[in-house]
Amino acid sequence: MAKKRVAIIGAGPSGLAQLRAFQSAKANGEDIPEIVCYEKQSNWGGLWNYTWRTGVDKDGEPCHGSMYRYLWSNGPKEGLEFADYSFDEHFGQEIASYPPRAVLFDYIEGRVKKAGVRDWIRFNNVVRDVSYDDASGKFTVTARDSEKDQETVEEYDHVIVASGHFSVPNVPEYPGFDGFNGRILHAHDFRDAREFEGKDILIMGSSYSAEDIGSQCWKYGAKSITSCYRSAPMGYDWPDNWDEVPALDRVEGRTAYFTDGTSRDVDAIILCTGYKHHFNFLPDDLRLKTANRLATTDLYKGVVWVHNPKLFYLGMQDQWFTFNMFDAQAWWVRDAIMGKIDLPDRATMDADWKKRQADEDALEDDYACIKYQGDYVAELIAETDYPSFDLDMACEQFYKWKKHKKQDIMTFRNNGYVSPLTGKKAPAHHTPWKDALDDSLESYLQTGA
Amino acid sequence: MAKKRVAIIGAGPSGLAQLRAFQSAKANGEDIPEIVCYEKQSNWGGLWNYTWRTGVDKDGEPCHGSMYRYLWSNGPKEGLEFADYSFDEHFGQEIASYPPRAVLFDYIEGRVKKAGVRDWIRFNNVVRDVSYDDASGKFTVTARDSEKDQETVEEYDHVIVASGHFSVPNVPEYPGFDGFNGRILHAHDFRDAREFEGKDILIMGSSYSAEDIGSQCWKYGAKSITSCYRSAPMGYDWPDNWDEVPALDRVEGRTAYFTDGTSRDVDAIILCTGYKHHFNFLPDDLRLKTANRLATTDLYKGVVWVHNPKLFYLGMQDQWFTFNMFDAQAWWVRDAIMGKIDLPDRATMDADWKKRQADEDALEDDYACIKYQGDYVAELIAETDYPSFDLDMACEQFYKWKKHKKQDIMTFRNNGYVSPLTGKKAPAHHTPWKDALDDSLESYLQTGA
Repeated sequence: MAKKRVAIIGAGPSGLAQLRAFQSAKANGEDIPEIVCYEKQSNWGGLWNYTWRTGVDKDGEPCHGSMYRYLWSNGPKEGLEFADYSFDEHFGQEIASYPPRAVLFDYIEGRVKKAGVRDWIRFNNVVRDVSYDDASGKFTVTARDSEKDQETVEEYDHVIVASGHFSVPNVPEYPGFDGFNGRILHAHDFRDAREFEGKDILIMGSSYSAEDIGSQCWKYGAKSITSCYRSAPMGYDWPDNWDEVPALDRVEGRTAYFTDGTSRDVDAIILCTGYKHHFNFLPDDLRLKTANRLATTDLYKGVVWVHNPKLFYLGMQDQWFTFNMFDAQAWWVRDAIMGKIDLPDRATMDADWKKRQADEDALEDDYACIKYQGDYVAELIAETDYPSFDLDMACEQFYKWKKHKKQDIMTFRNNGYVSPLTGKKAPAHHTPWKDALDDSLESYLQTGA
Repeated sequence: MAKKRVAIIGAGPSGLAQLRAFQSAKANGEDIPEIVCYEKQSNWGGLWNYTWRTGVDKDGEPCHGSMYRYLWSNGPKEGLEFADYSFDEHFGQEIASYPPRAVLFDYIEGRVKKAGVRDWIRFNNVVRDVSYDDASGKFTVTARDSEKDQETVEEYDHVIVASGHFSVPNVPEYPGFDGFNGRILHAHDFRDAREFEGKDILIMGSSYSAEDIGSQCWKYGAKSITSCYRSAPMGYDWPDNWDEVPALDRVEGRTAYFTDGTSRDVDAIILCTGYKHHFNFLPDDLRLKTANRLATTDLYKGVVWVHNPKLFYLGMQDQWFTFNMFDAQAWWVRDAIMGKIDLPDRATMDADWKKRQADEDALEDDYACIKYQGDYVAELIAETDYPSFDLDMACEQFYKWKKHKKQDIMTFRNNGYVSPLTGKKAPAHHTPWKDALDDSLESYLQTGA
């Protein structure tokens, strides 16, 4: 019998977790399927592969990257550590808890370099279509290689969608946007906070992007930050030149008017209004439609497409846990494909995601949500050979993180947290976040003075 | 026999010309095919449908619009007038020769409103795939309706690609771009020149976008403009705060270094580096690959896809002539589809585009190129019932335009030209272009004081 063929779409954290999962089975002497990973960028890392480009990429496809310069992790690294590849192993030294982008990229890359899976990836290949044929029971994946300017059309037994859901911006329109005399951009297109030095900035939104992009602009010298919310303020103790106001009503010229009747003149409007689950390469019968939530619609165990269980999705949840959750999912999907985990009937699969959503809906606060997702990760890990670790201890780090943010949104990154893998507490970083203008790996890894 | 079905992709100037062509045959009592026009935007007009959005649109698809605020036509309207719908007919008054965007949009829309073809268009429908089946001899068009969040899959006898080629930016990378401390954008994402008031701007490129976006920034108060070229300078007599320098070598921080060893500190870099013929919805066997030139590769008569002559492309040429050339093409394609024009064998079709390219390659200067494209338009018109007009007189207007630009790049729009339809010379506009900061239709149509 011919080997099964598996297509993975995307070589970001989720796709790379999937490659590592298969490679680890292979290293154990198991007979793994043939793997092809399609990646539209020219390098791996997904969002962590920084690009200065915005809009469309070098190949005319929507730019994947939402990453900006100077980004530091907004949660402690102790909550996202790979259980099979610790930070200590990678760096050979203890590092602080909120690494900048370059440091996390290096860490992600370190594991897959060690695994030797780069050859499984077809870079510069954008997937244009996936279809499923009932008669043959196979998927057809159509991809364009931008370097060869040529398409490939290949058949697969399984497809794993790992293309992420923080790449396609949700961009609302407000009255007057078409006449605004400055720049309007979505967080997706935000790149260098220094562009906004000395400027009056309006940030729309009240979630992570709003909080962090506003903080970046503050750190790099924006004159003032105004952030506006629709439902509730973020409520942190903001610096003096940051005001949080109710929702935007309209813009006239350079003046933004809010629903409380106040107004501000602003130079730029940054829409931190979230992202869409958008899959422009999938037909309706294979396309996930879900809200950004912990328990996704139509995915058994959060990964199996109930309408066609040969298709899987990774990382489509709203996320407290990230890299380690993708790992838990990837190992589980690997075992489902390799026949080590049996999938139940459709009714059971439907009952699964519906119960997960009901359970999620009953959660009372963020702390309960963190625990809920930690339990989900633990559930998947228990069903595969992914190295187990203390999920409750990981949750504890998130709880502390939330408290540190509440204490002071501009200093929370100066804290250190305990690794659930090693049990050790991370050292404080050598420089407070607000004073560390150089976000390079070299600077971050300096020890001592 | 069932009616033929024809799909038109795009409702910009080319697609609308095609709708008008079929509608005019219908008005003449002819039995026309069933027409479906797919338009990804929520309104018609293509590039002339201004949007403040950049990057991806409201539906997560690459933003079509490259239009910016305050744009005035960069060529005289007398060179682009519809032969079946004069400016005088539309406006009921004589207007000056370089209308702003809103005025041209109104004109384009006026003709198709009069024709009553809006119902043929499926707005908010992005075409995701087109395929051709040899057995059935039919095309299958897969499109997603973003409002219904649902796909349609339908069969057609013919497909006409009218999606344009000034929407997908060509974005080169230079050393240091990933560390530039300001904004880097392509002309495609340029929207409001006032964003750059008081700024030092670097414009990369030496074609229309460079010339016009630089002029906009100058008009609306940029502190300085530096434009750089790879092959040859534009060579106009620029204002004092505009310098034209050789190619960019690299960027460090905010400093741009050029190949002549000079450098400038700049706040923003605007890449006026052209556009790609990019069709992310077409498979290799249907996809045009051509340089941006007057005689396109693989298109018989500039419109028939030689590899499958049931497929047509409109407006894929580099353009001196625009709206009236799209009309000439649309009427010709209509008649080919309706069997009034016979297509020759493959060898003849190949010989056609190759001869056109050889003829184009032998042209000596821009004046010859204008005449060459005028002759092409006249050739097509002579083979259909599209109203004939004096193409040589239209060419004359372009010649004068080029001379006016050479005389003074900041005043050329103050001139009036002769309409080849009416023989009348347009009045001078009431306000010189550089002083007319309000680009609204109302302002432009004011007469007298």
